[in-house]
Amino acid sequence: MSRVSVFAPASVANISCGFDVLGVCLDNVGDILHIEEVSKSGIEITEIIGQDLPLKATQNVAGVAGLALLADYGHNKGFQIQIEKGIKPGSGIGSSSASAAGAVVGINHLLGNPYTREQLIAFAMEGERVACGTAHADNVSPVLLGGFTLVRSVNPLDVVTLNSPLELVFTIIHPEIEVKTADARAVLLDKLHLKQAVAQTANLGALVTGLFKEDYELIRRSLVDHIVEPVRSMLIPGFNELKNRANEAGALGTGISGSGPSVFALSKGMDTAQKVGLAMQEVYDEIGVPYNTHISPINAKGVKIL
Amino acid sequence: MSRVSVFAPASVANISCGFDVLGVCLDNVGDILHIEEVSKSGIEITEIIGQDLPLKATQNVAGVAGLALLADYGHNKGFQIQIEKGIKPGSGIGSSSASAAGAVVGINHLLGNPYTREQLIAFAMEGERVACGTAHADNVSPVLLGGFTLVRSVNPLDVVTLNSPLELVFTIIHPEIEVKTADARAVLLDKLHLKQAVAQTANLGALVTGLFKEDYELIRRSLVDHIVEPVRSMLIPGFNELKNRANEAGALGTGISGSGPSVFALSKGMDTAQKVGLAMQEVYDEIGVPYNTHISPINAKGVKIL
Repeated sequence: MSRVSVFAPASVANISCGFDVLGVCLDNVGDILHIEEVSKSGIEITEIIGQDLPLKATQNVAGVAGLALLADYGHNKGFQIQIEKGIKPGSGIGSSSASAAGAVVGINHLLGNPYTREQLIAFAMEGERVACGTAHADNVSPVLLGGFTLVRSVNPLDVVTLNSPLELVFTIIHPEIEVKTADARAVLLDKLHLKQAVAQTANLGALVTGLFKEDYELIRRSLVDHIVEPVRSMLIPGFNELKNRANEAGALGTGISGSGPSVFALSKGMDTAQKVGLAMQEVYDEIGVPYNTHISPINAKGVKIL
Repeated sequence: MSRVSVFAPASVANISCGFDVLGVCLDNVGDILHIEEVSKSGIEITEIIGQDLPLKATQNVAGVAGLALLADYGHNKGFQIQIEKGIKPGSGIGSSSASAAGAVVGINHLLGNPYTREQLIAFAMEGERVACGTAHADNVSPVLLGGFTLVRSVNPLDVVTLNSPLELVFTIIHPEIEVKTADARAVLLDKLHLKQAVAQTANLGALVTGLFKEDYELIRRSLVDHIVEPVRSMLIPGFNELKNRANEAGALGTGISGSGPSVFALSKGMDTAQKVGLAMQEVYDEIGVPYNTHISPINAKGVKIL
């Protein structure tokens, strides 16, 4: 029977003014999934290396995403999946999305690619539902399509790809504390002022424009979030200091990655991204928060067949 | 002394999901301003043809915009302005913006262009302040810069130009009733749900993407406004019927132009825009509302020196 290995990258959702809408695919941090077609129908998760996660297919994001694909495809196909977790669950850089997206790309490949990458989003979202309780598309979309993506609508699903300027580099710092997505959701206020909504649409529109025009100064001015960041950042140790130091070190902007606790800084060029990383690490060294960091250009292709 | 004539076009602000943020410049409807340098310093409005508007410079939008420019420029310069109003005040297609923008472009021209078009926005906004009470930039920006513009921020002023696909054509129908901007503002709810704000940012981001990618079907899907249109449309006779018939006739989308009462429909191609115009006229013929219509491609240059 045939087998395939895939690299399923991490991703950053929200990106300041793009709450629940924007996402971007990272390049050099992710999970590796080894998928093998077997005669027994269904999905079996044989092993998860590096993290303690459920092996039962119906409780595992990769399992659920794969089962959603198979339910649509029919033909009683069966696959075994072994997962090497390179992304820490709960870090805010799309751990569950990577596994879910990797599973459906791998299975689709072994089936002869009956589905487009766009069509795979809905299956991967089912995996997200197990992890977060709701079927978000803002992480699985960039992981499947590559680059920056915008979720115009979840129901019906409507995802569009944006331009991804080559020189953009993400610096991610992950404080080793747990922030549950449910808690990060709970702090959000349900209502906001019309003026706040207008400012958010203005910044998001300007950010999208900055991406298409490759106008880095416009990207810098647009990376502003007056709605979610002020409340969610309270859950992240030293957030304001991280942001100030990263921006002083040259970042175009700094914000919360997904629902946190990871913090992203976006820079023009690898040199700046590395300086920004050092500046952020200094903050956590000073206040004694354990962390790990990733520096990554944008991955324009998404999940990769190895 | 030198003189100049300028054509100052009408504009559509808001454009469904772009409330208080987006605007676009029209091509074949507008005011004509004849401006002459004179020895007496300050601004004198000598004549307004076609509409009954204040001649006193400090009460006239073109006068106030011109005075704002001169206050910044210094040198005791003086200009006389004659205005042929081609746009009806209160129609919702940027009547005051056209006169204000036309005045500052003409005066700037006669001064040897000391200011860029971008720099003129702030002066023209002062004219808007006389007309509306607040200094909006969403109409003057497209009139000065041409095409589609996005106001990222009013304070500090930050306006960006978007791509304007050539095939887009606007159909405008103006019911001859008066809707005061203040009334149109008063019906707006001050607070909204986070979900509504997310949907608006998603649609605005997708519309901007559609403009850059020249993806007309994406533009169609993005021309949605769940925040302002549901309340403001109640002030416009037959709005829902206009919208249904225009979209049935092939429009990509239909919404309120500025704060109304004009309604715009956006179409791909002149033929469709004309069919859409007939469909909208039928609605007002049936319910007995007097109207006038304009059909216009996008003006990519803004105010034109004649």
